Amino acid sequence: MSLSSTPRTRLHRLRERAGTDRAQLHAILDAGLICHLGVIVDGSPMVVPTLYGRSGDTMYLHGSTGSRSLHAGGEVCVTVTHLDGLVLARSVFHHSANYRSAMIYGVPRLVEDPDEHLAALRDLTEHLVPGQWDATRRPNRKELAATTVLALSLDESSVKVRQGPPSDEEEDYALPTWAGVLPLAVSWGEPVPDPRLAPGLEVPEHIARRL
Amino acid sequence: MSLSSTPRTRLHRLRERAGTDRAQLHAILDAGLICHLGVIVDGSPMVVPTLYGRSGDTMYLHGSTGSRSLHAGGEVCVTVTHLDGLVLARSVFHHSANYRSAMIYGVPRLVEDPDEHLAALRDLTEHLVPGQWDATRRPNRKELAATTVLALSLDESSVKVRQGPPSDEEEDYALPTWAGVLPLAVSWGEPVPDPRLAPGLEVPEHIARRL
Repeated sequence: MSLSSTPRTRLHRLRERAGTDRAQLHAILDAGLICHLGVIVDGSPMVVPTLYGRSGDTMYLHGSTGSRSLHAGGEVCVTVTHLDGLVLARSVFHHSANYRSAMIYGVPRLVEDPDEHLAALRDLTEHLVPGQWDATRRPNRKELAATTVLALSLDESSVKVRQGPPSDEEEDYALPTWAGVLPLAVSWGEPVPDPRLAPGLEVPEHIARRL
Repeated sequence: MSLSSTPRTRLHRLRERAGTDRAQLHAILDAGLICHLGVIVDGSPMVVPTLYGRSGDTMYLHGSTGSRSLHAGGEVCVTVTHLDGLVLARSVFHHSANYRSAMIYGVPRLVEDPDEHLAALRDLTEHLVPGQWDATRRPNRKELAATTVLALSLDESSVKVRQGPPSDEEEDYALPTWAGVLPLAVSWGEPVPDPRLAPGLEVPEHIARRL
């Protein structure tokens, strides 16, 4: 039932991969909204959910300049997971999950160049809702100074995917037990306007397109 | 925009908490399907998505006896996150996410007692679909021997929650910019029967109830 050991697991360094694998990695990252950032703080692992952006083969993470997880230093592991369904088998042992997952390992680089810093915040914002960067007030000097951005290369990354029906023991297929997949999907609800929204403001088109 | 720093963040040891906090922790775990398990392998962090179960104030994780993440040793951090919505503010800086998240720290205990081992696998199975333990073939001796189960106490854990509208700078409320929340939810699709399902088997009631 572990997500980490399936027949379709693939684990490669990106630079050794064909274009299809790179496209699959990008697709998994682009379809996700949050990642789980793993760092070592005072010798202990710490796993923090956080938003992210991507530009080419670079992933951007950001947060407060006071964030422990962003300033842990050293290597990180960032994981993005889409849970696509529960796999119900005829035996307890072969229960599993259908999913798409990407893991990225590396030592992130602190983004110090002002242009890259701003561009990374644009990538992070556009990752949430394309068009949102142009629709909102951009960060001022004080806000920029309060925001740490880390860049993480996708060079060392892996993609793991499980899809399809359960794989039961041959002799179990005769059991009178229902087996199959319960699909799961993330869906958008109706936008909830801020109670302090200025009168007459409708949901703009770029947001409506996201839903 | 980081999930790790919101005004409503709470961070406590469970044993110092009131019953409401404990109930909230349990509710977050019970509503989730996968966690992200953070371990240290060869000095590097590793974050692996995996299924889990809960019994009282113990969380159970399991996997193959060959799993690197389950046999890393030492402290772990397990994080369960529900992404409830994107928070679109009038300024880039105040974009955020609504979420419920639980983080559990500790040194897991290898479950060696056969009764607890079996009970933990029941908890893991029932966590997916209540009723599924009685509906499926239970693990045989060989399968049990191939399955490692770890028990992790919920004693040291934290709950972080952000809900509600964006918090913009006072002067930004006058901007003609749409702001609010785009809700997100996980939903079940129609069950997909195994292509090799024995004829005449309908989706049983305990599974239909889960959807």
